[in-house]
Amino acid sequence: MSAKVKMLKTLKAKECLDDIKTLKNKKQFASMWFRELRDKICKSFEEIENKKILNKQITFNQKSWERDGGGGGTISIMHGDVFEKVGVNISTVHGKFSKEFRQQIPGAEENGLFWASGISVVSHMCNPHVPAAHMNTRMLITGKGSKKKLWFGGGGDLTPTFNDIESSNIFHKDLKSICDKYDKSYYPTFKRWCDDYFYLPHREEPRGVGGIFFDYLCNEDWEKDFSFIQSIGSTFLSSYLSIIKRRLSRKFNDKDRETQLIKRGRYVEFNLLYDRGTIFGLKTGGNTEAVLMSLPPKVSWY
Amino acid sequence: MSAKVKMLKTLKAKECLDDIKTLKNKKQFASMWFRELRDKICKSFEEIENKKILNKQITFNQKSWERDGGGGGTISIMHGDVFEKVGVNISTVHGKFSKEFRQQIPGAEENGLFWASGISVVSHMCNPHVPAAHMNTRMLITGKGSKKKLWFGGGGDLTPTFNDIESSNIFHKDLKSICDKYDKSYYPTFKRWCDDYFYLPHREEPRGVGGIFFDYLCNEDWEKDFSFIQSIGSTFLSSYLSIIKRRLSRKFNDKDRETQLIKRGRYVEFNLLYDRGTIFGLKTGGNTEAVLMSLPPKVSWY
Repeated sequence: MSAKVKMLKTLKAKECLDDIKTLKNKKQFASMWFRELRDKICKSFEEIENKKILNKQITFNQKSWERDGGGGGTISIMHGDVFEKVGVNISTVHGKFSKEFRQQIPGAEENGLFWASGISVVSHMCNPHVPAAHMNTRMLITGKGSKKKLWFGGGGDLTPTFNDIESSNIFHKDLKSICDKYDKSYYPTFKRWCDDYFYLPHREEPRGVGGIFFDYLCNEDWEKDFSFIQSIGSTFLSSYLSIIKRRLSRKFNDKDRETQLIKRGRYVEFNLLYDRGTIFGLKTGGNTEAVLMSLPPKVSWY
Repeated sequence: MSAKVKMLKTLKAKECLDDIKTLKNKKQFASMWFRELRDKICKSFEEIENKKILNKQITFNQKSWERDGGGGGTISIMHGDVFEKVGVNISTVHGKFSKEFRQQIPGAEENGLFWASGISVVSHMCNPHVPAAHMNTRMLITGKGSKKKLWFGGGGDLTPTFNDIESSNIFHKDLKSICDKYDKSYYPTFKRWCDDYFYLPHREEPRGVGGIFFDYLCNEDWEKDFSFIQSIGSTFLSSYLSIIKRRLSRKFNDKDRETQLIKRGRYVEFNLLYDRGTIFGLKTGGNTEAVLMSLPPKVSWY
């Protein structure tokens, strides 16, 4: 691994010296983008869902929630014949982390203050030949005054039921292509980070075929980081749409479906046993419905 | 709460001063009992499973495993038309806890040495009107020499899909009756312990209707404790059998079934997010298949 790759893998959020007005603008740009991306994703998924059947009108249901302590979010969920369950959450929250968790968050050690805005997409498909997909990006600010820190985190990964090299190649190629436009070291680093993260040690199995994953991204150039975050969202959407369209008409039988439901069990195991966001969300009084939006609609264990 | 109840709730494993031969006998009695109880439970469940249909012969499948470091166990699983998935695990293992976990186990702090034998039963039923049930009892020995500790732990609890007062009453009455024969403070203490333990904070919901739960049980009189452990096993079996028989012929529809699958999702959430045995088992290299035997066969989330 190159020195740069190593360095990136151990990214640490840096101090943020913005004045109040600049920071306010950044917050607003980020949260507006997450909302805009949510609308785009929902619209595209609804189009696919309703394409084949005339007068079919399956749409996302939206439900907003408020956070005790500040901010809130909106859960958008659709259950259809193409998307068995797809959720798109956005949230913009602020407040104080409890003392128990402050040490785990850069910049929050002293007073626990934080602001966070993000989007999270999880899609479980009816057809076992279409991979499940996940994408999440967020902007975080912690602390106050000259000790404030600001960074981006996120990623996207694909979980096919079967050995689906076609989808995996498309997804990785698209992500690599967008990463390379920003920094040649991003893709190899963030791919590896993703492989390390989405792994079930008790099964000795990866959750899926990976993608990219990163945290504490904070270059001097905020605009560049933010543009990268936007690109991940747009690229995830176009890449996943092309994967869905390629594989949607594949025939499947009851056995394929059962294999899919077993595979989903691993997804549940990962999210409840290891996923930082899920565990952190549930144990810090996050919105349960939003946090558990990621869980698949039907699952089997043997 | 009485002083005695408080005292019991904070049970601490005491030193065990048995000579080697006595200890060897206790280990043998305990592990033999768990095996005997396993056979009894499997036989009774197979009888129910095959009762109604002539020539039907659904039986438990057994699979043995060995533990790196010492000992092993046997998983018995049956999938039928009455029992959608029922697992009965027994294991007798010994070795050393990794340094990371020693501080959490009485007597294991210094050298991590342990010996453990136990049985675990988890039953998920086809008919949503028959509650799921769980029972587990175990004997633990940690440390060595005069710092050795020996204790029993275990419990049993019931998870109906619906508001099933009948089953809950039978189960609690039977458990209370057997507890009271040993110590009048057992039932109120262990019931409360169970209610505290099988609770999902993120849902603000109990996992089911409770039962009993305890750990670090070690009176001066080992024979009495062991007899209590045996009684829990036998009482759980007879009580659950009577509940099954009463409710098995109830009609149910697709909506009832869906409600059951959603309820099972809470069961999964509890086991993967909070259950000590599950998390400890998976993170200390326990047998994954045995540990996750508890997970329901079919589950839904919305």
